[in-house]
Amino acid sequence: MTEPARPLSVRKQDTLRRLEEDVDLWVATASADGAPYLMPLSFLWDGSTLLLSTAAGNPTAKNLRANATAQLTLGHTRDVVHITATAEILQSGALAESEGDAFAAKAGFDPRGLKSPYPFFRLTPTRILAWREVDELSNRTLMDDGAWLV
Amino acid sequence: MTEPARPLSVRKQDTLRRLEEDVDLWVATASADGAPYLMPLSFLWDGSTLLLSTAAGNPTAKNLRANATAQLTLGHTRDVVHITATAEILQSGALAESEGDAFAAKAGFDPRGLKSPYPFFRLTPTRILAWREVDELSNRTLMDDGAWLV
Repeated sequence: MTEPARPLSVRKQDTLRRLEEDVDLWVATASADGAPYLMPLSFLWDGSTLLLSTAAGNPTAKNLRANATAQLTLGHTRDVVHITATAEILQSGALAESEGDAFAAKAGFDPRGLKSPYPFFRLTPTRILAWREVDELSNRTLMDDGAWLV
Repeated sequence: MTEPARPLSVRKQDTLRRLEEDVDLWVATASADGAPYLMPLSFLWDGSTLLLSTAAGNPTAKNLRANATAQLTLGHTRDVVHITATAEILQSGALAESEGDAFAAKAGFDPRGLKSPYPFFRLTPTRILAWREVDELSNRTLMDDGAWLV
């Protein structure tokens, strides 16, 4: 709490930079019977959605098929970008080759070349919050209902 | 992936140090109707359980009352301590004063002195994994069924 609270316009800039530059984020999902599951995954931001990929047999993939709502966080516990998002699974062929290439370059692996099924998911943010410490808690909403507020 | 994969004994040491020294962790819970929720919280490790506190009206507190299973992560996306835990809410008076004092000193706030209800939760790990990068993924279980394997 050495820095003053950032205005929301600055938090949006910081958030967009983090979405561009960070390689991994935390993905929280829930199973059909309501068990929470938390894993880090690599992602690619295209300006409005996040592209993820994980093995079809992993709980994150199973959970997103059963319950499309996810919460994602970027950054550290004292510099949080907090995203609520809705996931859709991309059918084979639905991903542009250039986007798959960009994902592989950023993530360091190419899900398209793996023998076991590794589906892509596109997550569309519906709500984004950003805060660092207590002084930024009270007014931290950057996006709501899928629309940027700032 | 510049470092070689750590043996499990080293990962346990690293995990215990992180449990002692880290101030915050990520807490993933799910609501009664299965919506995932992810937030950072401060915690205190007593050698076998984690003590957390959050406002009674916050989703994390509501979720833990409805569904005691949580997943917790410490560290960064490329240096993960991953804990599955079962939560119990501590009834008023069930927390030793010394433990409450230790929590307040570490977390930087004292839930016992707040006007609004701020319950404590004790989370008992049932499963702990630790990994950094791909080379540590295949064999990463330090605790299962509540027992350390190493």
